[in-house]
Amino acid sequence: MKAEIFCIGTELILGDTVNTNAAYISRKLAELGISCSFHCAAGDNPQRIKQSLEIILKRSDLLIITGGLGPTDDDITMQAIAEFFNTELVFSAQAYEKIKEFFTARNCEVPQKAKKQAFFPQDAEIITNPIGTAPGIAWNIRGKHILALPGVPHELYRMWETFVANYLGQFSEYVIEKKFLKFIGIPEGSLGEKIQDLMTSENPTVAPYLSQGYTKVRIAARAKTKQEAKDLIDQMESQVLSSVGQYLWGYDDDTLEKVVGEVLSGKNLTVSVAESCTGGLISSRLTDISGSSNYIKMNLVVYSNEAKIDTLGVNPELIKTYGAVNEQVAAQMAQNIRKLAGTDIGLGVTGIAGPTGATPQKPVGLVYIGLADGDKTEVHKVNINPSFERKIVKHTASSYALNYLRLFISIVL
Amino acid sequence: MKAEIFCIGTELILGDTVNTNAAYISRKLAELGISCSFHCAAGDNPQRIKQSLEIILKRSDLLIITGGLGPTDDDITMQAIAEFFNTELVFSAQAYEKIKEFFTARNCEVPQKAKKQAFFPQDAEIITNPIGTAPGIAWNIRGKHILALPGVPHELYRMWETFVANYLGQFSEYVIEKKFLKFIGIPEGSLGEKIQDLMTSENPTVAPYLSQGYTKVRIAARAKTKQEAKDLIDQMESQVLSSVGQYLWGYDDDTLEKVVGEVLSGKNLTVSVAESCTGGLISSRLTDISGSSNYIKMNLVVYSNEAKIDTLGVNPELIKTYGAVNEQVAAQMAQNIRKLAGTDIGLGVTGIAGPTGATPQKPVGLVYIGLADGDKTEVHKVNINPSFERKIVKHTASSYALNYLRLFISIVL
Repeated sequence: MKAEIFCIGTELILGDTVNTNAAYISRKLAELGISCSFHCAAGDNPQRIKQSLEIILKRSDLLIITGGLGPTDDDITMQAIAEFFNTELVFSAQAYEKIKEFFTARNCEVPQKAKKQAFFPQDAEIITNPIGTAPGIAWNIRGKHILALPGVPHELYRMWETFVANYLGQFSEYVIEKKFLKFIGIPEGSLGEKIQDLMTSENPTVAPYLSQGYTKVRIAARAKTKQEAKDLIDQMESQVLSSVGQYLWGYDDDTLEKVVGEVLSGKNLTVSVAESCTGGLISSRLTDISGSSNYIKMNLVVYSNEAKIDTLGVNPELIKTYGAVNEQVAAQMAQNIRKLAGTDIGLGVTGIAGPTGATPQKPVGLVYIGLADGDKTEVHKVNINPSFERKIVKHTASSYALNYLRLFISIVL
Repeated sequence: MKAEIFCIGTELILGDTVNTNAAYISRKLAELGISCSFHCAAGDNPQRIKQSLEIILKRSDLLIITGGLGPTDDDITMQAIAEFFNTELVFSAQAYEKIKEFFTARNCEVPQKAKKQAFFPQDAEIITNPIGTAPGIAWNIRGKHILALPGVPHELYRMWETFVANYLGQFSEYVIEKKFLKFIGIPEGSLGEKIQDLMTSENPTVAPYLSQGYTKVRIAARAKTKQEAKDLIDQMESQVLSSVGQYLWGYDDDTLEKVVGEVLSGKNLTVSVAESCTGGLISSRLTDISGSSNYIKMNLVVYSNEAKIDTLGVNPELIKTYGAVNEQVAAQMAQNIRKLAGTDIGLGVTGIAGPTGATPQKPVGLVYIGLADGDKTEVHKVNINPSFERKIVKHTASSYALNYLRLFISIVL
């Protein structure tokens, strides 16, 4: 089974959109043990689409197409596929009902053009789009397997999970299992040095990657069965953790906010956050987790000194003397938000997000993270790379804060 | 002159690396007015590389290759190109000197494998790599123009600037200019219907794209000079705006938070936000903008009913009778945060982020957005697609809120 990915969209060919879909699908195929040899991309042009289909279907058995399934006139993928195979598109009343429901559920008029998205090759299986209007197809024709899916990434991901992963199971000869180990507080290079002997292993493979604010290690194993692959991974994981286990904070799809939520829920604790330089990002990340209303009651973004003093009760003399980016200010922010919100723990974060506002003593990326539980207050000083963009500084600071919160709950309380 | 991009690397085909190079080169070609029709990618496999060259050189005149120029055994691009054209690679002492300098300047031993990077087709022009060890080539052979460049993005960018942009000038007959118009509050399909006549235009071209929470329209024009292209775009822009101008919120790299910041600064106004379902995301987006401390003083995340009542002073009877997701609660949140933070405008947002917490009357995605300026309070009800994931609901709600804030400032105040 040779697979190939063909992404359609003039925005790709003009470079206006980076083709993340090809990478996503490649990863998903690899997980299923289906080997992919080529990626192709072309604009929304019927001749070039058909010319590409001609080439691809000579060398590959399974073709996954993305893009060009939208309602507008330049979305011509379905039509081009049908023309290539000299067949007609047929209207599906059932698919059209679902499209109409999409609009009526949002109190929107159904656009006239939407009907176009309910036409498919006669014998193709229609793949429902649970979160958009563009259905996909799975079509077996002339001994080839063709899947056409929307180009909007989150629609593609959802349809992959709800339909495609299962459908492609039939073509899979061996399985590849992967596990990601996530570390924080150790640079990628140092982590790589510590596990360098393990990185020469061929099965499972071990590779570190730098992510935003943390480092992850991928362990990938290939085997005849899922269980065999998992056993290989488990053995390797033990070896990795024996040298860098103290920096581990999570696995796979874990996020710091999810892990923090689990520790809080597990100990039945609540937390509140007073943010300055992170501007609400820590609060937003914490509330990305469903069920976070069990441990989040109220958070405060105190951007101005007045808000820090008047609403949060930080000592004005402190700010006057040392400025708002200061260890003691972070401590008071943590203590006072805890009291104000009536939570078990308080977290206070103050720093320089940049690109302006820095001084020689207080560079961009300097952040103080305060934690208080009523008995004990601790403050951590973090220096983030000052050449990072403002948004990256904010995000990295929020990751450090969430990790210190995680450690504070696990160890202190 | 038909150009094509061919990216080589097993990491691309496995999906471990997103192919940002293809998008970069496409944008650069478009700036030069060189039209690109296809992207291809293949792994570090000699047969597949040669098979791809066969296809590409039949349909394109200019081929830009990236990747596979490194020192290790799996880097075989130069060898594969030479084999395809039945020619030998020849050692360049001069290029090897430069590679050795790279290592000695860093006090590193010259690795044995590095010599491999000093072999090139006899009559190819060698492109110096100012920041890495892999030189590239520009080769005219059998009427075709072939450029091979490293796959490491920042090396590619530097070599593009120092050599390629200039080199390709010879093929450039016209320039392409682009402008993005960004719209919110109208579905992509309805917008497409309203500008459908314009979408058939060949120069400039007009195409709508769905983005997260909004729709953008790309206008791209081709002309002999930059000014001519810009004039064509201006004319088309007027036509687009004459039918959908009321939904426009920005251009090109604009974000809603940037545009809101500009309107606030322009009118010298401050704003404060009380968030429930968006959990701090609106505050975080507003503070992503450098200089936002001029108009943001304090924001509040009131996640629990107690926080809404005790800290923000929302009427408890109201919440008891109607629940917290309610038009009047949104109005009070806006009015009260405005007073509490002492700002000109207050924004209050309450809704159901999901996936839990919904009722038949209050589905996931129901959001109320309140705005108050002391004289006037308005509340907007929004229904976001209930099948969206929690994070997408939050993001879409924050975009609606920022857009209503923008309109409130522009029109009301």
